[in-house]
Amino acid sequence: MVTLRSLAPRQLQPPLAVTMGDAAGIGPEIIVKAWRARPDLVAHSVVVGDLAVMRRAVALWGDGLEVAVVNALAHLAMLPRGVIPVKPVTSLDSLPVHGQLSGASGKAAAQCVIEAAQMALRGEVSAMVTAPLNKEAMALGGVTFPGHTELLAHQAALFQGLAQPLPVRMMLMNDALRVVLLSIHVPLRQALAAVTQENILQTLSITNASLHRMLGRAPVIFVSGLNPHAGENGLMGDEERNVIAPALALAKAQGLKVEGPFPPDTVFMNARARFEQPGAPDIVLAMYHDQGLIPVKYMGLEHGVNVTLGLPFVRASPDHGTGFDIAGLSQADPSSLVRAIEVARQLSLPVG
Amino acid sequence: MVTLRSLAPRQLQPPLAVTMGDAAGIGPEIIVKAWRARPDLVAHSVVVGDLAVMRRAVALWGDGLEVAVVNALAHLAMLPRGVIPVKPVTSLDSLPVHGQLSGASGKAAAQCVIEAAQMALRGEVSAMVTAPLNKEAMALGGVTFPGHTELLAHQAALFQGLAQPLPVRMMLMNDALRVVLLSIHVPLRQALAAVTQENILQTLSITNASLHRMLGRAPVIFVSGLNPHAGENGLMGDEERNVIAPALALAKAQGLKVEGPFPPDTVFMNARARFEQPGAPDIVLAMYHDQGLIPVKYMGLEHGVNVTLGLPFVRASPDHGTGFDIAGLSQADPSSLVRAIEVARQLSLPVG
Repeated sequence: MVTLRSLAPRQLQPPLAVTMGDAAGIGPEIIVKAWRARPDLVAHSVVVGDLAVMRRAVALWGDGLEVAVVNALAHLAMLPRGVIPVKPVTSLDSLPVHGQLSGASGKAAAQCVIEAAQMALRGEVSAMVTAPLNKEAMALGGVTFPGHTELLAHQAALFQGLAQPLPVRMMLMNDALRVVLLSIHVPLRQALAAVTQENILQTLSITNASLHRMLGRAPVIFVSGLNPHAGENGLMGDEERNVIAPALALAKAQGLKVEGPFPPDTVFMNARARFEQPGAPDIVLAMYHDQGLIPVKYMGLEHGVNVTLGLPFVRASPDHGTGFDIAGLSQADPSSLVRAIEVARQLSLPVG
Repeated sequence: MVTLRSLAPRQLQPPLAVTMGDAAGIGPEIIVKAWRARPDLVAHSVVVGDLAVMRRAVALWGDGLEVAVVNALAHLAMLPRGVIPVKPVTSLDSLPVHGQLSGASGKAAAQCVIEAAQMALRGEVSAMVTAPLNKEAMALGGVTFPGHTELLAHQAALFQGLAQPLPVRMMLMNDALRVVLLSIHVPLRQALAAVTQENILQTLSITNASLHRMLGRAPVIFVSGLNPHAGENGLMGDEERNVIAPALALAKAQGLKVEGPFPPDTVFMNARARFEQPGAPDIVLAMYHDQGLIPVKYMGLEHGVNVTLGLPFVRASPDHGTGFDIAGLSQADPSSLVRAIEVARQLSLPVG
């Protein structure tokens, strides 16, 4: 991507953790395929997972790759190419059947995420990239978080001694659009209640800081309205006049480059059409989950990347699920995972 | 479009009315350009407008075309090519300045729509295609309807002696997606209240009848959910379980080919990716304005067509506005208007 800052030379890259995801899904397959496809990119990265699961994946899709057990990350720099370093976290009783829901796999996947997050919080890795979880499998395994975002927001807060989860936001991006969401996994009715000046200002602040780091400059943030035609001067809703516009005025007074609110049905179209052109928005703030995810997913999930903004470390993931329907069939496409690793590398560059 | 029924030979086509739109906008320009580009398609069509405005447009963009005044539609069949037939409805005191808002232009545009609708209601034309209105200009001219859809729903009801506007629905389509909307120009809060079994059933019934006529077979209708992940079994909202799913069960019992509710953030993506493939949906029912309009507009407005379903006549329009910013500059693209005329021709074919 043109405006992203250049990647540092290989030897300067700080370590990065890739979590295995649900072992019955496509996670292990796309990880192995990413290692084959982009040895340059995955240098100094470690898979946080289950040794037997990763060995099976390498046997199926590794094409000559080998697994190396790595407990001390200092050893990463010494590994030759052609090796997938695995930090073993779980030890499943039996190899999960591809495509089959199980509490054991769900729980193991969550444990890998927790361990990778601890590594990031302790500063051992600079970023984590997460292969997909299955929420139902996690629930069967006794894990009640609906997804990575919520789990990490809680865990990071715990590490810092805070009782409340950190205020994080979900950013979705592909090759033509970036969106950040004001709220995520709540009913649309509750999402309306989350359209507050406080939430908008906090989201803009988190987004501005993260994008600044990513782009090396202050981002231009376009803000969508909530109602049809952005309320059309109060004719079709008043949140734009009463909530969103005043919040944007405050953000501008703080020096943020924000514009809006714009009509929802064209702001994403316009941002895509002008992507990376002079004066174009770098990201669009969506007022609720589907307002942002419908456009960012519309042309397909191949290059979608999900980034959690607001954590004390970098976390990115592919924008697709566990793919239980194609798990084990060698059909999984690692493009989105590769893109997630690229983005995570970008975001974890030292600032300046 | 492959699955649309073939157009009838020219001599069999019933007359079609094209309304001028706001005379200060791009309407007259795209009409003239459409007449130049597609003489085959516009045969037996008449422009309902202002004579002086259309003469100016022909002088600017007609490239040899001539205006012919037509009061009796029977004369249409006798006109040679190279002529734009105009039925004069208004007579503006002065020619509107391109790009300039005025009550006179707004009122004149509405009068043309009313006249064309009367022609359709009386059976003089089989369809109408409308160039864009400007709502603000109409309001300045004392017309309070927010757009064509509402105006036509009232007018058709009046013609039938009904006090309530007809239950019409807005369909938007382009070359890769069709969507129909459960509600349109209301605040999102009110749109949530419009998610009722009755509304869903009525919308499905109207959509099924119109698409059947358009495609020559019963359509497959996919239905989007309202909440993130279509509620995920009640975890993120219960409208899917309590309202949408029961309505779909009733519609299926009536023989309609409906499926859903599907997660909003991927149903449009999937419909686009599979468009016109076997088993693919012919249209997606969106639960509110922006849920359907964000995806259908995402790749641009060039080929977007807006169709009003549920009227006693056919009405289609381009999916863009009056373009005041480019009016008079010869930059307007007639593609969407041409596509709207094609669709209107299709929809007004005799059934069977």
